[in-house]
Amino acid sequence: MNLLLKEIRHNPLLWLLVFVPAVFAGRELKPDAHTLLFALSVLAIVPLAALLSHATESVAAKTGDAVGGLLNATLGNLTELVIALTALHAGQYMLVKASIAGAIVTNTLFMLGGSFLLGGLKHHVQEFNRGSARMQAGLLFLATVALLIPSAVSGSDSTAGAAFIEELSVGLAVLLIVVYGMGMLFSLKTHRELFASAQAGEAGEAPWPVGLALATLAGVTVLVALVSEVFVESVQEAAVAFGMTPAFVGFIVVALVGGAAEMAAAFSGARKNRLDLSVGIALGSASQIALFVAPVLVLLSYVIGPTPMSLQFWPGAVVMMLIATMTAALVTNSGRSAWFVGVLVLAVYLVFATTLYLMPPRLQ
Amino acid sequence: MNLLLKEIRHNPLLWLLVFVPAVFAGRELKPDAHTLLFALSVLAIVPLAALLSHATESVAAKTGDAVGGLLNATLGNLTELVIALTALHAGQYMLVKASIAGAIVTNTLFMLGGSFLLGGLKHHVQEFNRGSARMQAGLLFLATVALLIPSAVSGSDSTAGAAFIEELSVGLAVLLIVVYGMGMLFSLKTHRELFASAQAGEAGEAPWPVGLALATLAGVTVLVALVSEVFVESVQEAAVAFGMTPAFVGFIVVALVGGAAEMAAAFSGARKNRLDLSVGIALGSASQIALFVAPVLVLLSYVIGPTPMSLQFWPGAVVMMLIATMTAALVTNSGRSAWFVGVLVLAVYLVFATTLYLMPPRLQ
Amino acid sequence: MNLLLKEIRHNPLLWLLVFVPAVFAGRELKPDAHTLLFALSVLAIVPLAALLSHATESVAAKTGDAVGGLLNATLGNLTELVIALTALHAGQYMLVKASIAGAIVTNTLFMLGGSFLLGGLKHHVQEFNRGSARMQAGLLFLATVALLIPSAVSGSDSTAGAAFIEELSVGLAVLLIVVYGMGMLFSLKTHRELFASAQAGEAGEAPWPVGLALATLAGVTVLVALVSEVFVESVQEAAVAFGMTPAFVGFIVVALVGGAAEMAAAFSGARKNRLDLSVGIALGSASQIALFVAPVLVLLSYVIGPTPMSLQFWPGAVVMMLIATMTAALVTNSGRSAWFVGVLVLAVYLVFATTLYLMPPRLQ
Repeated sequence: MNLLLKEIRHNPLLWLLVFVPAVFAGRELKPDAHTLLFALSVLAIVPLAALLSHATESVAAKTGDAVGGLLNATLGNLTELVIALTALHAGQYMLVKASIAGAIVTNTLFMLGGSFLLGGLKHHVQEFNRGSARMQAGLLFLATVALLIPSAVSGSDSTAGAAFIEELSVGLAVLLIVVYGMGMLFSLKTHRELFASAQAGEAGEAPWPVGLALATLAGVTVLVALVSEVFVESVQEAAVAFGMTPAFVGFIVVALVGGAAEMAAAFSGARKNRLDLSVGIALGSASQIALFVAPVLVLLSYVIGPTPMSLQFWPGAVVMMLIATMTAALVTNSGRSAWFVGVLVLAVYLVFATTLYLMPPRLQ
Repeated sequence: MNLLLKEIRHNPLLWLLVFVPAVFAGRELKPDAHTLLFALSVLAIVPLAALLSHATESVAAKTGDAVGGLLNATLGNLTELVIALTALHAGQYMLVKASIAGAIVTNTLFMLGGSFLLGGLKHHVQEFNRGSARMQAGLLFLATVALLIPSAVSGSDSTAGAAFIEELSVGLAVLLIVVYGMGMLFSLKTHRELFASAQAGEAGEAPWPVGLALATLAGVTVLVALVSEVFVESVQEAAVAFGMTPAFVGFIVVALVGGAAEMAAAFSGARKNRLDLSVGIALGSASQIALFVAPVLVLLSYVIGPTPMSLQFWPGAVVMMLIATMTAALVTNSGRSAWFVGVLVLAVYLVFATTLYLMPPRLQ
Repeated sequence: MNLLLKEIRHNPLLWLLVFVPAVFAGRELKPDAHTLLFALSVLAIVPLAALLSHATESVAAKTGDAVGGLLNATLGNLTELVIALTALHAGQYMLVKASIAGAIVTNTLFMLGGSFLLGGLKHHVQEFNRGSARMQAGLLFLATVALLIPSAVSGSDSTAGAAFIEELSVGLAVLLIVVYGMGMLFSLKTHRELFASAQAGEAGEAPWPVGLALATLAGVTVLVALVSEVFVESVQEAAVAFGMTPAFVGFIVVALVGGAAEMAAAFSGARKNRLDLSVGIALGSASQIALFVAPVLVLLSYVIGPTPMSLQFWPGAVVMMLIATMTAALVTNSGRSAWFVGVLVLAVYLVFATTLYLMPPRLQ
């Protein structure tokens, strides 16, 4: 416990934890102040995500490589998963889908572009292992394609064949989870040396004792779930108040909030000229959303959602996901980067964000 | 003749030749048992394709490099061509187009993915010549793009401009065949050294004497044509009986049946750690469909078809062909592979197959 | 002035300057001979573009690297810009957009393919710096994507959200120009060594004295503007007379005419086995259209156009631009080329040109 307090004292990001009680207090005192509740819950999720991330790594460090890697790979996007589950439970499928698509786009464009820019401002030209970057970009492309086929095939004709789309979504969800399982076998067992540098790098901070780590993991997950509930309840009204479209909130705000901890790790890796680490976090995290988080949500919608959720996205989201993965493949292809590459990747992200911000809701 | 019998005795695949007379017997005795006739004709085409392939290689081996290469390049997809011609003659244009698109997708995804998986299960990491793989993936991409433009440009508006699409299809067919001719000049004459390894490798089995090879080539082509007729007649009803959509049959079943011989060669190359050979067969065969088989069918539709056939595909097929060629470009880019790369490529193929299997016919 | 005359005597391309007075004479004497005026103005623009290009380089050579590079980068597509401005002023937005899309497609496909083919006919296999080619292809891809988002997102639904598209176009135009400015900082200041070979190479001819160069720059720009006016006025009727669609004229004819000088430089570099130069000119010029010319035209449409112009292109143009940039990325990826690669790239261009030539106007 002392250790936890010490960590909090030294990490300014964790000072934001003060907003966690503030969220619950706010909900009791001013249940209708949606904008305030939205802002408080955003500020509260960021430090909780950072704690979750550190706790996961600590457990992973103690349990040995194979189980640890498994834990890291499964719980790495726990924050995104908990937020999406809360939205799923509330039946807000548009928000769920926007947050899936947004997490893929934000991880590939914002996290990768930011890493290239921040690293490039400090180092003239940065080299990274293009072999493993290419393999990871390939995996991400294939994972995204599998996710996109239902939307691509049904096309504009969204009313036709609802039963077909539902059946197809379940089939593909099962397929994606099987592929995800094989991918873990691959990266943790048969070919772990290909992914070695990225994993070794993540253990930058001193790990906690396993008891504290497990307790933190459990406690913080509950807190994230509780805060997410406030977040999901208030997000729609807050969006209206801020003049933001629902698509913008799901795509940009939720994705940035949920991925804050990983972004901090990726950016810090880039500043230390360890771009392999940054590329691994960004592309690995995006693949995990496509191969694990998205299909799990589809399957769970049959259990906890009011109606089944499909894998069908609106066409604009499909275009953005495809472009994001193609961009990742292109910019990691040469194995070296400079600040302007980061600017361009961020520019594509800004183009998407601007489009979503301005887009009238009926087009979405 | 003795040699032929000896070959048959040693190659279990050729034992399936017993189904060739069975097809003709079945057609006489039970002309309405479509499901049976369909199954018999599928089983009969597989060994015939293997014989065709061996006969072509034997003739090629005897006639010297340039003519031999020409023969190999032209007759390599003879089975697919004969099946498609039979369907063309019967006016089943949907089946013809599905089999063109399916052959491109199956060769790039199933043949390439299967090679990566089977090779990777035996060898930890496999390296291949990424220079020539990239060039071949580039050619395939450009060939596919040329094939797709009529569909992409006319878009959803399929009723408008039928005359335009027809005129455009003929123009592009001529252009593609000219490019195909130049490609042969390139790979067989001016730059043969770039493609050397793949061609040398294919002569794995002992060649036949040229007389036997030519007789086999002629006789087996006639047999394939006759069996194809039964296949095309029975495929629609059999599809209904098996609960398969016409798109699934054309895309998946016809393509797997027609390409069985090449798949056997590609997979066997991968097991022997000769991935250059597998990549060359898979991408070369797909390019040949796009640059030669497809335009020849368009032009021949004016001679043997009831009405002219265009190069316009349904949008889902366009998406699948584009994704297949982009996948090929991505996974061959790094010049090395492991079993999980194969799993992912096969997963994309499975996604397509599942989609086509479940898709209600009116969406196609 | 003597120098100018000497240059004209030695450069057969400049003999076409005789068509400049012919255009003005023709306009006075036969104002309704649109086909004649169109042909004369095309023939007159080609040598003027060559003069502009040489004058820009001469000024650039005198003013030192940074300012010179800036001038070269800004005025490199001056001809295209002046023609587009004339069309913008006349309210011919379809022609403006077609010429933007056409310049990107023509520079990437025709200029790159022609360089590969012409170079490959002389040299067996040509190598070029694949590192910088990949970076440039990446920049071009991202620039094009930013340009395409408004069309991709609004999709087929072109009547909905006109205000949204307009607002978005202005926002993206500003963003693109900011990125363009950063790109110049990158290529001219912080990372000039990455682009060194291409710039050094362009100073092939002896530069003019700065006074002559500046006077030529000013005088020829005015002449281009005047001739462009005749061109834009006559192009529609001439298109009808030649049986060409407006899309074909904008996409193919205007782009070939406006880029003639750069093409001559790129092709000559390829013949001298300096493919780095050709690739740099082709991809750099296409990026400049997307990042600078297009957004400047959108912003200027508020000042000199009858109504605001958006960044929304018809879907066929979007597909063509995307395919062109993907093609550029693919063929420059391996860092080597041979004549057949050029044939294939030119074949894609021919496919586009054939499609646009045959396409009935109502589909555009």
